[in-house]
Amino acid sequence: MNTQDFKNAMAYLASAVSVVTTQGPLGRFGLTASAVCSVTDSPPSLLVCINQSSNSHAQFIQNQVLAVNVLPADNEVISNAFASKLSVEERFAMAEWDQLKTGAPILKKALVSFDCTVDHVQPVGSLDIFICKIVAIRQNTPSNALVYFDRRYHHIGSET
Amino acid sequence: MNTQDFKNAMAYLASAVSVVTTQGPLGRFGLTASAVCSVTDSPPSLLVCINQSSNSHAQFIQNQVLAVNVLPADNEVISNAFASKLSVEERFAMAEWDQLKTGAPILKKALVSFDCTVDHVQPVGSLDIFICKIVAIRQNTPSNALVYFDRRYHHIGSET
Repeated sequence: MNTQDFKNAMAYLASAVSVVTTQGPLGRFGLTASAVCSVTDSPPSLLVCINQSSNSHAQFIQNQVLAVNVLPADNEVISNAFASKLSVEERFAMAEWDQLKTGAPILKKALVSFDCTVDHVQPVGSLDIFICKIVAIRQNTPSNALVYFDRRYHHIGSET
Repeated sequence: MNTQDFKNAMAYLASAVSVVTTQGPLGRFGLTASAVCSVTDSPPSLLVCINQSSNSHAQFIQNQVLAVNVLPADNEVISNAFASKLSVEERFAMAEWDQLKTGAPILKKALVSFDCTVDHVQPVGSLDIFICKIVAIRQNTPSNALVYFDRRYHHIGSET
């Protein structure tokens, strides 16, 4: 199996789209992630996969805190910005932010945000799985969700 | 944060729906999973979260192979069956199966199936993260996907 076969197949695993952020001595950082999973409610945990080659990987490792901000529908612009070559300042200037317990940036208009401390980092080849303890949650008014599938964005919600 | 807060918030993290199967000396087993993530293409890897309290958890640990069968739209019945109290025989009788390299059951009508060997099992509280190496892939004709969001099934595809 080559890399292209892998990518073609994974394009058919639909996923939510999140902006994962962190805050620490070096400032704030954030990237778009589709590999986010609920893990368990005892203790409340989730996981995020972050490439070791990502620009902000070192900051996530160093800060040991992160927030997962799940994007509502109609936020393709935010998703694209946090997956682009834009600077950190340019990315964060595109939306309004808040914070909960850890200080990691909480997207005000997120569908739901999970504020987390990093509990364990499990390397797998070129990637790290960040296993995180959820220390605070902010849930906004329910709205449609942004989903990535078949290399395109989709909106799902009460009307679909 | 209590368990209900966690569950309410996680309901807003949309996910694909997969039937995860295994095959070994004790026979075949399978369950419905929404916590499946692409991990990395070097080496081709994915992860699946399985509760330690799941009936078939021991078989997944023992067999060290599994297949992730991503469900196409209109397969709520299969999803529900593999999350129900139906026996193993009753579950598998509801669809047609095949196999690739490991022998784990491959759902013939899956959107895409990933045949895997288990590389590492990472416990997190009451749950195990199965980090798996993908050894074979079967991709069927592209069709709509089944997605779970806001405690309901949704269909997404080329028309949404």
